[in-house]
Amino acid sequence: MFYAVIIAGGRGERFWPLSRAARPKQFLGLTGKKTMFRQTVERVAGAVGFDRILVITAGEFSSLVASQAPEIPPENILGEPVGRDTAAAIGLAALEVASRDPEAVLAVLPADHYINREDRFLEVLQGAVEAARGDFLVTLGITPTRPETGYGYILKGDPAGSFGGLGAFRVERFTEKPDLERALEFLGSGRYLWNSGMFVWRAGVILNCIKQYIPELHRGLREIAAAGGCHSNPGVLDRVYPSLPKLSIDYGVMEKAGNTLVIPGDFGWDDVGSWTALEGYLQPDRQGNVLSGRGVLLDTRNTFIHAPGRTVGTIGLTGLIVVVDGDCVLICPKDRAQEIKKITSALQGEGLGEAT
Amino acid sequence: MFYAVIIAGGRGERFWPLSRAARPKQFLGLTGKKTMFRQTVERVAGAVGFDRILVITAGEFSSLVASQAPEIPPENILGEPVGRDTAAAIGLAALEVASRDPEAVLAVLPADHYINREDRFLEVLQGAVEAARGDFLVTLGITPTRPETGYGYILKGDPAGSFGGLGAFRVERFTEKPDLERALEFLGSGRYLWNSGMFVWRAGVILNCIKQYIPELHRGLREIAAAGGCHSNPGVLDRVYPSLPKLSIDYGVMEKAGNTLVIPGDFGWDDVGSWTALEGYLQPDRQGNVLSGRGVLLDTRNTFIHAPGRTVGTIGLTGLIVVVDGDCVLICPKDRAQEIKKITSALQGEGLGEAT
Repeated sequence: MFYAVIIAGGRGERFWPLSRAARPKQFLGLTGKKTMFRQTVERVAGAVGFDRILVITAGEFSSLVASQAPEIPPENILGEPVGRDTAAAIGLAALEVASRDPEAVLAVLPADHYINREDRFLEVLQGAVEAARGDFLVTLGITPTRPETGYGYILKGDPAGSFGGLGAFRVERFTEKPDLERALEFLGSGRYLWNSGMFVWRAGVILNCIKQYIPELHRGLREIAAAGGCHSNPGVLDRVYPSLPKLSIDYGVMEKAGNTLVIPGDFGWDDVGSWTALEGYLQPDRQGNVLSGRGVLLDTRNTFIHAPGRTVGTIGLTGLIVVVDGDCVLICPKDRAQEIKKITSALQGEGLGEAT
Repeated sequence: MFYAVIIAGGRGERFWPLSRAARPKQFLGLTGKKTMFRQTVERVAGAVGFDRILVITAGEFSSLVASQAPEIPPENILGEPVGRDTAAAIGLAALEVASRDPEAVLAVLPADHYINREDRFLEVLQGAVEAARGDFLVTLGITPTRPETGYGYILKGDPAGSFGGLGAFRVERFTEKPDLERALEFLGSGRYLWNSGMFVWRAGVILNCIKQYIPELHRGLREIAAAGGCHSNPGVLDRVYPSLPKLSIDYGVMEKAGNTLVIPGDFGWDDVGSWTALEGYLQPDRQGNVLSGRGVLLDTRNTFIHAPGRTVGTIGLTGLIVVVDGDCVLICPKDRAQEIKKITSALQGEGLGEAT
């Protein structure tokens, strides 16, 4: 048995205007009728049971989490008073799991990923859990299918045995998002995997790594534990959390630790990081257009329009993203979809933060 | 004294989605707080009095006309059961005016034109009325200020005297909308005027011309008159109107008649034929953008956005028209604004006519 820790705190600013502060990406049904968070819960519920699903989320989303997954016990929902990136969130989750069973393995699963082949995913996850019992820090790597520049990559090292029938490899190196030329090299080499952001390890092992590599975070976690944890003393998070270092677990631990393994998986994964990623789940028409909504697209090509319930008329557009939601309108070329978060920042700067 | 006949039947499809079948261009406040129809009424009310303002409109707009101009007597509002272009509308109006006073002069004024210098306009109109008393067909020509390809042109002929201090000219020729090369020629020659679509003539004179050049229309009008006119016999229009020939007065009469004069005017006229024409009345920012609504336009230039009450975010757009109104969304390059009516046709073809 193991614990599934679902990280559901992100703001998803690249999905503005559909994702707003009060309703970020993981709580939307972007890739299906169910929200991405709910899909993540159901994906693992059969393997671990609802009692062993923990959710780390922003405090203001706790009730959203509870309403979308009422089967999860309330004490398994941990609300962060402020976002301090993944190292703090994972540290808090590990602390909670360790308080129940220090030997327990926990699988860290972002709430906003798309996974096509769920059975295969669970097989890979079970292999990773088995590897984690050997006190490794295990990460799930994705066999790349295109020269993606939006993901980080992992360079595979030597084989490190087989777990649940799956080959594991030493991690040689984590790399940042590459430019296209390097992404093509990575893809061609056959030695690189996408960094999925899914990790599996024992609670005690990751806490020890945090102690070693991010001592300031570990001191904060100890303070939370000393106060009886966040359940018996709800105020302690408000006091301690804002002062915790803001680091990703990749940068804070994984790139420094020596006992890291990667297990390659091929279960149809996508982090659905932007509007353009969504196109993979929708069927474009012959002109390459995707239209959610009604309308006529005249002389329009390769354009993604999300405007459910609206009537849209276009002439002569190419390669645009158009999103109409509530009273908000986004228009942006596809090749600049990564810049959409600039709009939310700019709106906040203009005193229009209520629209973000 | 003369009658002002305001033609307010147009659909304004080039202003979709703001103009819809139920609310066409002339009933919108595109160029000011008052609707263009109301502006047209007020422009002439001082000169003729509300009793001498007739409005020809589509039957379904009669109540809109009455509510926007309650001072106009109900019997002065003539609702066409179907649109049959300007010759039929003007014929019907001339019939009505002739039934009151066959010698009366009537000025035909489209309800959807912008006029900047109203005093000057009224001076020119008075000159035209004076000329019309000499049994001429008088048209108001506009001194061109740019090589506009969206208007028809009138070639001035010999001087034909002075009326109210204004020089009139024989009409040498009406020409269709030119291409840019010819428009530049017209502008450079100093001999061409824009065809404003505003005409002045005696009721009896235009009815005689209709008899001569569009006998089928004249027979229809006689049938309406024989039935007691559209007021004493409301059913007669429903019966006769659909069978009337569908012709513009330009094509049906003006291009054929010999007794045509043009009086040049320079009163800041624009037919506000498309979204791009509207830009002349709005102040663009330094990037050339016009935004009705809130929002941030990043790296966006020369773009017209009409989305009052909405929050708009754009990245990297150039030269677009964006209109969001109700549940309708239009996106179109400025240089294709004339094609917007294709959208309304296509929507109707797709069974989405309720949005047009």
